[in-house]
Amino acid sequence: LTDDKPKIGFLGLGYMGSRMAARLLDAGYPLAAYNRTPSKAHELEAQGATACPTPKELAAESAVLISCLADDAALEATLLGPDGALAGARSGSTLIEMSTVSPGASRRVFEAAGARGVAMLDAPVSGSTPQAEAGTLVIFVGGDGDVLAHRRPILTALGQTVLHMGPSGAGVHMKLVVNTLLGLGLQALAEALTLGEKSGLARDTLLDALAQTAHVSPAQKGKMENARRGTYPPQFPLRLMHKDFGLALDQAASLNVPMPAAAASRQIWAAELAQGREEDCSVVIRLLQTLAGLETNDRT
Amino acid sequence: LTDDKPKIGFLGLGYMGSRMAARLLDAGYPLAAYNRTPSKAHELEAQGATACPTPKELAAESAVLISCLADDAALEATLLGPDGALAGARSGSTLIEMSTVSPGASRRVFEAAGARGVAMLDAPVSGSTPQAEAGTLVIFVGGDGDVLAHRRPILTALGQTVLHMGPSGAGVHMKLVVNTLLGLGLQALAEALTLGEKSGLARDTLLDALAQTAHVSPAQKGKMENARRGTYPPQFPLRLMHKDFGLALDQAASLNVPMPAAAASRQIWAAELAQGREEDCSVVIRLLQTLAGLETNDRT
Amino acid sequence: LTDDKPKIGFLGLGYMGSRMAARLLDAGYPLAAYNRTPSKAHELEAQGATACPTPKELAAESAVLISCLADDAALEATLLGPDGALAGARSGSTLIEMSTVSPGASRRVFEAAGARGVAMLDAPVSGSTPQAEAGTLVIFVGGDGDVLAHRRPILTALGQTVLHMGPSGAGVHMKLVVNTLLGLGLQALAEALTLGEKSGLARDTLLDALAQTAHVSPAQKGKMENARRGTYPPQFPLRLMHKDFGLALDQAASLNVPMPAAAASRQIWAAELAQGREEDCSVVIRLLQTLAGLETNDRT
Amino acid sequence: LTDDKPKIGFLGLGYMGSRMAARLLDAGYPLAAYNRTPSKAHELEAQGATACPTPKELAAESAVLISCLADDAALEATLLGPDGALAGARSGSTLIEMSTVSPGASRRVFEAAGARGVAMLDAPVSGSTPQAEAGTLVIFVGGDGDVLAHRRPILTALGQTVLHMGPSGAGVHMKLVVNTLLGLGLQALAEALTLGEKSGLARDTLLDALAQTAHVSPAQKGKMENARRGTYPPQFPLRLMHKDFGLALDQAASLNVPMPAAAASRQIWAAELAQGREEDCSVVIRLLQTLAGLETNDRT
Repeated sequence: LTDDKPKIGFLGLGYMGSRMAARLLDAGYPLAAYNRTPSKAHELEAQGATACPTPKELAAESAVLISCLADDAALEATLLGPDGALAGARSGSTLIEMSTVSPGASRRVFEAAGARGVAMLDAPVSGSTPQAEAGTLVIFVGGDGDVLAHRRPILTALGQTVLHMGPSGAGVHMKLVVNTLLGLGLQALAEALTLGEKSGLARDTLLDALAQTAHVSPAQKGKMENARRGTYPPQFPLRLMHKDFGLALDQAASLNVPMPAAAASRQIWAAELAQGREEDCSVVIRLLQTLAGLETNDRT
Repeated sequence: LTDDKPKIGFLGLGYMGSRMAARLLDAGYPLAAYNRTPSKAHELEAQGATACPTPKELAAESAVLISCLADDAALEATLLGPDGALAGARSGSTLIEMSTVSPGASRRVFEAAGARGVAMLDAPVSGSTPQAEAGTLVIFVGGDGDVLAHRRPILTALGQTVLHMGPSGAGVHMKLVVNTLLGLGLQALAEALTLGEKSGLARDTLLDALAQTAHVSPAQKGKMENARRGTYPPQFPLRLMHKDFGLALDQAASLNVPMPAAAASRQIWAAELAQGREEDCSVVIRLLQTLAGLETNDRT
Repeated sequence: LTDDKPKIGFLGLGYMGSRMAARLLDAGYPLAAYNRTPSKAHELEAQGATACPTPKELAAESAVLISCLADDAALEATLLGPDGALAGARSGSTLIEMSTVSPGASRRVFEAAGARGVAMLDAPVSGSTPQAEAGTLVIFVGGDGDVLAHRRPILTALGQTVLHMGPSGAGVHMKLVVNTLLGLGLQALAEALTLGEKSGLARDTLLDALAQTAHVSPAQKGKMENARRGTYPPQFPLRLMHKDFGLALDQAASLNVPMPAAAASRQIWAAELAQGREEDCSVVIRLLQTLAGLETNDRT
Repeated sequence: LTDDKPKIGFLGLGYMGSRMAARLLDAGYPLAAYNRTPSKAHELEAQGATACPTPKELAAESAVLISCLADDAALEATLLGPDGALAGARSGSTLIEMSTVSPGASRRVFEAAGARGVAMLDAPVSGSTPQAEAGTLVIFVGGDGDVLAHRRPILTALGQTVLHMGPSGAGVHMKLVVNTLLGLGLQALAEALTLGEKSGLARDTLLDALAQTAHVSPAQKGKMENARRGTYPPQFPLRLMHKDFGLALDQAASLNVPMPAAAASRQIWAAELAQGREEDCSVVIRLLQTLAGLETNDRT
């Protein structure tokens, strides 16, 4: 009976996590939350959540833990430390790990969870804040199929599309694949649009025409509107995409996979990051325009 | 009256040209054709066309000339030589130039046409042989808007989507933009799929999952079926994509546009072209798999 | 007797050509000269040369022609046009072609020369203006060994090191090899120095230490002094190096040779060329420093 | 008196370490050694060293510790573990850390050493096994100038050229700079030689001519002999160079330094590493030749 809506402990209330936790509350799950900056957890209390002062205490009272953290360091601090969630987690509980982290960090958490009798699914997502709000994320799951079957209702509340990619680690691997496509898709747009505009094509004509070809993805189509306006409000900041390309290229290096276009793209992004702005990853379009000496739109 | 279905002279009956000429015959246009290898023109005679021995003679009897040639050299030989089409073209006729060539070659033909009193549209296409057969090409047109309005019925017979990109040259420029996106889209797939498979993901699981994300274009989705089967029958050979990336990078160099991912991709493609096979441009997926030491599907 | 110091016709009095012609005059050769901008030929008259109004007239009175021109277009205009040198050249004379041009342009001139009974050597040089003045150029020669033996005294007046690389074209091919090394050597310096400085190493300490390793060439050592001062006076402008990398990459593309580092370097150089300054190719050091957000030396 | 030849504890007897320890014995230093594989320490006993079973015990009896380890993991295991050297090190002793490791790992060891009252110099070397044997290494030192002055005689026994690069970390930073130049120098050779050979130049002619230009470093000149013979015996394996480029690119990513040529080179090297051979880093020459479809020398 209890297990119909098990008690969820949510770790990490950033851009994505806060929206995902809110959806689970809406779906009727009892939910307690921990965030390094406590104010974010208190915001969620208005929606019915309980704030918890440490990951360890949160874990002790949860049947299901969900983590959605910024990077390897945050993951290891929140899950593995002496006050970390696994130090308090109950045997028989489930950890659904939804961060975009390195395969190595994910594996270390998986092993530590196993040693505590906690079943872990790695379950990173494709989609950004609008999809998190609407519950239309695509979720890539690695881990045991029975555990997934048992916990699928929770994941379905977050994303319509829940895909079992294989054993533990498969979700993390798939996320690196997807972000490779996303990042290279933006770099491709940046190079193609800058070539076109510097050749003399009008920006709107160019964007309208591109949208009618078979060569743009839905994600690219969305980002093309940033190029049209010349503004790049941070939905998924370039800084994080740069970090994720680092994870993909490290994984590729360990497996001897050549990724020449990904590596070339990441190098040029450094010239934007050196400016110290926080803008959406699609700002690589403006970066290429600027390097080419093209007048870019004002951002007034 | 005549002008309702003006007499068309078609130059170049390759993969694309032969299918486009056939569509114009089907649409009721009187059509004569020239091809360097005459046998191809004779094949078209069965469908109602007249074969013509030289471009010059063809031009002399045509109200509208359409050229669809392999590269700059073929274009200049067929249009500009002493037996070339412009040597015979009538003043007041229209040249619709649909090849993928360099902006420089297109401009030289435009100027030579103008000197003969021939109005030229540059009108390269997006799409491959299936779209050419079905009349669903996307056509990017550069040149005078009135000339385009006058000749639009002919173009509409070849493609539903006819886009006026700007003055002379704009169609050619747009084609380089589109092929940049197409080629980088394939390179992105190649890197992402190889990373995923070498990380341990099963190929079919990976392809099925990707297809459910927002990060693949319709064109990429089609090419993913080649990766699934491990066969790459030449629809648009890598050799020609490599040539087109050469045109885009030359144009970029002349305009000081950095295209790091495009340049990186073209370099790795050389390792496939050095094998001397004629396969579809999506064979870059197998190339990356092979370089990474991944077992690829047999093609038996 | 005459042949001991045959009459030389010199075509092209740019940075390099003017210095090379002056050396031949110093060495006692009778010399007439043509330059598109006539003023430069008149400057040489003070040193004993005769100025000649057209390449054709110059060729008619020369036993040996030497050309040192900017690029393919200048070469073809000066050698192959109706007033070009080959239109006037005497059968039995020798053409020593010292420009850095494409293998294709060199071959076209070689064939046109042969048709006129003119023996051609392709003989591009390694070295810059100081070496041209001092007669210490390295000269890479392609062509017939007997012709080279016959004309070696002239070449020795220009460079101590005259190397027979093989049949016609071999000199041009070798020049592309050497410029690849030169350009990549500068890009390597730029990346290494910027990494070191941004890591906190003092510029002078870093340069002094590097100079004591086995990892810098004499050419790199010279360019490191530009980095030390933060000024890049044009000895060999980046614009020309960018052009030469274009020639090398075109040749590589036609032979299916992957050149990933060369291609990557050329793309980033575009960001400097877009600024429209004329500085030495070693300015790529400052380019990388700037892109990385490093304070560079003032040039006040 | 004792301090004239202080007792040295040497950690890590690989390719480089074993030769460096032997030189210190030859120079009259009392020396004890630890190696993870004990057999290597026993080999050194014949030359007068004492073998020690754990880093901790070794440190307890040494005035100066020298470490020369494979990578970050080996460094942290040998220095920082419960049986690690710092657990036994005497206050007032000196640690000379000569490995090529990440700036982060070096800093962690520096901080742990400081907490134990141990002064640390980071002192990586430029040079390979012949230079280690001959005592002609170039040594880049980061750390306190007085500590360096005190311990300079030991370093001078290993390398003629001992350069103080700045405070702690500066030696490690300089090593990344030098390896960037070395690795890009090899990639440049690989691209240039393959272009030249595929253009038709004879390999020996090409190598002889290159050696006469100003564009090859002493290190490149040495590696060109491998290309001449077509054999690449491992002096400094490509696997380790690939690892070091990983360190340099990680450092660059954290500082927003674009390194496009370094990144492009590392990607293509993956295609060689996927073959699983252990050859010298200069094998990238053969890699490019093979990718370009060039017949390479047999290695019989």
